[in-house]
Amino acid sequence: MTIASRLLATAALISLTTAGVAQAAPAHSDAKAIERAFDAQISSTDQLAWLKDMSSAPNHVSSPHDRANAEMQLALFKQWGWNARIETFQVLYPTPISTTLELVVPERVVLGGQEPAVPEDPSSANLQGALPPYLAYQGDGDVTASVVYVNYGMPDDYEALAARGINVKGKIVLARYGGGWRGLKPKLAQEHGAAGCLIYSDPADDGYGERDPFPRGGGRPETGVQRGSVQDLTQYPGDPLTPGIGATADAKRLTRETAPTILKIPALPISYGDAAKIMSRLEGPVIGGRARGGLALAYHWGGTDAVKVHLAVKSDWSLKPIYDVIAVMPGATRPDEWVVRGNHHDGWVFGASDPLTGQVALMSEAKALGALKRTGWRPDRTIVYASWDGEEPGLLGSTEWVETHADELARKAVLYINTDNNGRGFLSAEGSHDLQHFVNAAARDVTDPQTSMSVLDRLRANVRAGAYAGTERRAEDTSAIDAAKSGGDMPIEALGSGSDYSAFLQHLGIPSLNIGFGGEGGGGGSYHSAYDSYYHVTKFDDPGLAYGAVLSKMVGRLVLRAADGPRVPARYGDFATTVSRYVSQVKKLATDQRDKDRALRDLTRDDVFKLASNPDDPTSAPEGKGVTPLIDMLALEDAADRLTRSAHAADAAIERMPTLLPAAQTHMQTKLRDIDQLLIDRAGLPGRPWFRNLVYAPGTLTGYGAKTLPGVREAIEQRRFADATAYVARTAAVLNAYSDRLDAAVNAGK
Amino acid sequence: MTIASRLLATAALISLTTAGVAQAAPAHSDAKAIERAFDAQISSTDQLAWLKDMSSAPNHVSSPHDRANAEMQLALFKQWGWNARIETFQVLYPTPISTTLELVVPERVVLGGQEPAVPEDPSSANLQGALPPYLAYQGDGDVTASVVYVNYGMPDDYEALAARGINVKGKIVLARYGGGWRGLKPKLAQEHGAAGCLIYSDPADDGYGERDPFPRGGGRPETGVQRGSVQDLTQYPGDPLTPGIGATADAKRLTRETAPTILKIPALPISYGDAAKIMSRLEGPVIGGRARGGLALAYHWGGTDAVKVHLAVKSDWSLKPIYDVIAVMPGATRPDEWVVRGNHHDGWVFGASDPLTGQVALMSEAKALGALKRTGWRPDRTIVYASWDGEEPGLLGSTEWVETHADELARKAVLYINTDNNGRGFLSAEGSHDLQHFVNAAARDVTDPQTSMSVLDRLRANVRAGAYAGTERRAEDTSAIDAAKSGGDMPIEALGSGSDYSAFLQHLGIPSLNIGFGGEGGGGGSYHSAYDSYYHVTKFDDPGLAYGAVLSKMVGRLVLRAADGPRVPARYGDFATTVSRYVSQVKKLATDQRDKDRALRDLTRDDVFKLASNPDDPTSAPEGKGVTPLIDMLALEDAADRLTRSAHAADAAIERMPTLLPAAQTHMQTKLRDIDQLLIDRAGLPGRPWFRNLVYAPGTLTGYGAKTLPGVREAIEQRRFADATAYVARTAAVLNAYSDRLDAAVNAGK
Repeated sequence: MTIASRLLATAALISLTTAGVAQAAPAHSDAKAIERAFDAQISSTDQLAWLKDMSSAPNHVSSPHDRANAEMQLALFKQWGWNARIETFQVLYPTPISTTLELVVPERVVLGGQEPAVPEDPSSANLQGALPPYLAYQGDGDVTASVVYVNYGMPDDYEALAARGINVKGKIVLARYGGGWRGLKPKLAQEHGAAGCLIYSDPADDGYGERDPFPRGGGRPETGVQRGSVQDLTQYPGDPLTPGIGATADAKRLTRETAPTILKIPALPISYGDAAKIMSRLEGPVIGGRARGGLALAYHWGGTDAVKVHLAVKSDWSLKPIYDVIAVMPGATRPDEWVVRGNHHDGWVFGASDPLTGQVALMSEAKALGALKRTGWRPDRTIVYASWDGEEPGLLGSTEWVETHADELARKAVLYINTDNNGRGFLSAEGSHDLQHFVNAAARDVTDPQTSMSVLDRLRANVRAGAYAGTERRAEDTSAIDAAKSGGDMPIEALGSGSDYSAFLQHLGIPSLNIGFGGEGGGGGSYHSAYDSYYHVTKFDDPGLAYGAVLSKMVGRLVLRAADGPRVPARYGDFATTVSRYVSQVKKLATDQRDKDRALRDLTRDDVFKLASNPDDPTSAPEGKGVTPLIDMLALEDAADRLTRSAHAADAAIERMPTLLPAAQTHMQTKLRDIDQLLIDRAGLPGRPWFRNLVYAPGTLTGYGAKTLPGVREAIEQRRFADATAYVARTAAVLNAYSDRLDAAVNAGK
Repeated sequence: MTIASRLLATAALISLTTAGVAQAAPAHSDAKAIERAFDAQISSTDQLAWLKDMSSAPNHVSSPHDRANAEMQLALFKQWGWNARIETFQVLYPTPISTTLELVVPERVVLGGQEPAVPEDPSSANLQGALPPYLAYQGDGDVTASVVYVNYGMPDDYEALAARGINVKGKIVLARYGGGWRGLKPKLAQEHGAAGCLIYSDPADDGYGERDPFPRGGGRPETGVQRGSVQDLTQYPGDPLTPGIGATADAKRLTRETAPTILKIPALPISYGDAAKIMSRLEGPVIGGRARGGLALAYHWGGTDAVKVHLAVKSDWSLKPIYDVIAVMPGATRPDEWVVRGNHHDGWVFGASDPLTGQVALMSEAKALGALKRTGWRPDRTIVYASWDGEEPGLLGSTEWVETHADELARKAVLYINTDNNGRGFLSAEGSHDLQHFVNAAARDVTDPQTSMSVLDRLRANVRAGAYAGTERRAEDTSAIDAAKSGGDMPIEALGSGSDYSAFLQHLGIPSLNIGFGGEGGGGGSYHSAYDSYYHVTKFDDPGLAYGAVLSKMVGRLVLRAADGPRVPARYGDFATTVSRYVSQVKKLATDQRDKDRALRDLTRDDVFKLASNPDDPTSAPEGKGVTPLIDMLALEDAADRLTRSAHAADAAIERMPTLLPAAQTHMQTKLRDIDQLLIDRAGLPGRPWFRNLVYAPGTLTGYGAKTLPGVREAIEQRRFADATAYVARTAAVLNAYSDRLDAAVNAGK
């Protein structure tokens, strides 16, 4: 289907709703009518057509179809009435010249290579030009070595190996996906002296353990491989050669050799079919309990000469262009306040689910906003829609754009709303906690297509049912269960990393949200594989893209409500409550770690590990690390208490705002407009200055997973106790600055 | 090896130690020397020879070698100086005439049959006369029906099926082993209207999920099948036709049709190789989470016409003889106080691990006691060694013997010590809690061969290491962890069922212990299969039978210490502390169940299950059962408090006992000798009068697993609230009777 025909198909809809919208606009009092008019433009049929077109050929960075998708979107944005342009950056983006994987001992078996076609899925027969299984920013190399299974390849796994006297020096580690971000696995392997790294999707986590493998169901088949980036984005995301600055044509660049986020050892992702061929031959103690996965064999640590693998990767390390599509709808009354909304458009192969399910929802929103504009409506604030390129290799498009426009964004951006792949199921919302009520209010007004209840009520039902069944993941923190039961606001979760909000939130401090639906359907079984196709999405992940439309309606409300009205509707008490919870967690972390350290010291003293050791799996004591000292967190506790008082006073003042004189209102708004940026500390986090937000960061040892109050929390976890004390003070300082500003806003409104 | 040559081989040892023992005996002051002399007789070499001989042919009930083993033991006991005899009973014991299992839809695949030979294991090539995979006391029948996977086949699994609208009426259920006793699976299937039942060993629980499958390791291979009994031993164990009375030749018998412990539907056990052939073809919603096992496929509930299986079983239901070997060594000073010690000798196939690892340890003890006797030593009390037949089909030999001699045992038996299969690893001790300190004291004096520490210290180390790793199974109740850390007595666990202590403890109230070692080695991967062989035991389960010797030394100490000295060394405070913990658990159970009932009521009212339901797996609310009422447990709490006071007073009085006049000592001993029998209530438990102990019983819905304070606990769980109130009173009454007796003993010593 061509773009033109799609535009024609929806022209009727626009004219149908024009009358009602024209009445409503631009009066804010009739925001509901605007939202109804917006909803009327959202079409799953549109989304299906765009999805089919955009996923019709491989669209990874530097592929022809990736650029074509950007240009297609540019044309559409313009057609819909946006000021649109493509912004290009030159980034280091490696592409494979050759990838080799073979078992060589005890026998020669060729492994790896492109995923085979599946008859039911037409696109899988059409893999010319597609990226083979590959990990971007691995280190290239050619090694033949024995293999050590390292479970998830996280620090506790290396401790388990060390307790057994197994080391990975000069060997190839075989890690399964999960337990932490992909990129940490080869990074930790490299730090432990490994010569290479393989990562496979274990069927317990991502395969028949969860659902029927494709094509019978949406689960990962034994031939499916998860591609991905292994850039060290816990140091900084974006182009590895231009940390902190935009990767414009003339930017000053590091060399590949000096760029710290690029790996030094070769690495490849493999299927569980291939992993089984290696693992069934490994020797050494059998692994019981949580360190084993779901393959139909006893898991062994390996590390002996019984198994050797040849792994070789060679890449083209040239600079390549990426294409961000940026579309602007200027604000009528507050043009210098920007609401930014983004999703990426690059995939790993066809990218139908990731990212295009989110991308076509964004396009629906842009089309609907364009239609509203055509009726005469204008947003108060400027709306910026961004279709990022290069998210997959390392948040390249968003990071370079944010770094390039950092000063302007710091002055103007009041909110960033991100989406990424989307599916059938339940609302997931993560972000800055002063936006928690804002998200809940929108979720209350969006209908779930399967139950005809609000998406908020369906989420509550799911949390309650999960709590009853004992499967609710957030059971340790009862706030979600309590809220679901009482009908209060559902807590949103903290943002770590893994999508394009990172530079906005963690580098600049712009309040951010990440919104999506999921938990049913294919469940990620095609993630980053050649089977992430139009067929897979429409058969399993979100048939008819019903939840694509829901996502558009949910995010569209957030955009409209943030762009219109006197202020971005933050509620500071929610942030204060959440920060207090984080402070309690960090205190408990220190206490628990101290208790565990003492226990380990005593167990080691009493030779308990040796006495309990099974001769079939001789295990010595874990390496002792001393006892965590008492850490004085009074300043942080005081700051959280003060924040609670200031936030409640500010929320009360905001309620009174409509009764104030316009000048006082403006004065209050000005004070609050960039308050979230006060959570930034210019020095950044210890060892990673690019990450400057002292409340939200991705964990250095979780990758995607958030670490809140990261300066303190990670310093305790990583036993940098001087840092912990220093960041108690620094974190208290940013929280106090935030409280100061709240107090100033209250005073401005007096 | 013949019996004569084995006796010759150990003759030298006996003469070597004769001098020292002769000096020591019969003075109790030199008990240590007696134990050293006893230890000197314990020989793993003996045990290996006996094991090889006794496991050289199939030895299930009614097999020629089962009888030959009894007669061989009889000869040995006599040779060792015991008064030994064989006691025979006539029991209903079915043997298979034919077993048929085949997949018929979607295609015909023959399943089932005898386990194939494994080249490494010579006995597996020698299966003539061996029992094929079979479940004793299944109901016979010939059915062809569709298949429903029921996970463990326990009540909560049927609730999960009901919530999905899947019923098993007229179908064949396929259950995996685990989660409750084997016999409950076909029983519950039958109660839900199933036409047949298959039980398989899932590799997650018993196969490559734990260890390398045989013969690479000791784990269950895909061809291994767990035979077993499905008699309803939660109603009563023993011969189904003679509940409560001995199955002597002239006993009054029920008919097969009226015997309530025999199933009405056909059932067979199968391998996971066969189970996979059925399960890979099942349809219906995919099962995630805890209800799936370790097969390399997505689990489905099934129940559709896509899969049909033909199951047919025909058995010979004639009476067969069983042969208990009973050996007596009369007590010198208290011949009418009996210490009874037993293990069974019948297996399912070769029975090398189960039961012969325990049986050969018992034989070592009997030989060593015989050697002591030959030096002139005599026990104060009478020692009775029993080698039971027919344990596997339903504790037949022990139950019929206890029922036959019930009056005499009630008058004379002061302790029963049981063992069963034994392996390498850690001490496991279960039993009457007034014996807890007695067990700990012995465990402190027995050396673990792998660490040269005491078996008690190695157990403590294992519990501490497990607590640190988060794998200690008893973590909910911290008493084991606390004791391991502090160096206090390790708690023993309560006895449920599953071995020959049941009639002693639960029918008569004789204080009982069950002792074994395990947790390393083969880990049960040959359990009840054709691969439970001499090769498997000596290769994986307990190489060299090192722990066979340890078991003999541990149990030998218990026998010697119980048989000598002024009284069986009970400590009543341990029992009181444990009962108080059980009372707290039962109170918490009622409160938790009430809370969960309320939650379910509210979730159902709010339609939460329907709203949260995934259309791929539509799930309705679990069936509501009303809200558990408040249950007044004051009488039980009072009884526990009183027991604590009386027990501590009694323990203090016992410490003073050596200072008393002999008449007062005797008076005290007489009061305490049968005190455990006061825990018997003549009416028995609701619906199962054979089980009369109101502190210890097997659960009606756990089978092997103990339910303590069962009259109250199970009444709450099963929502028989009137029974709960009635058994609060009855349980308080037996505890008060116990306290009365303690008080009387204290007074007797004044």
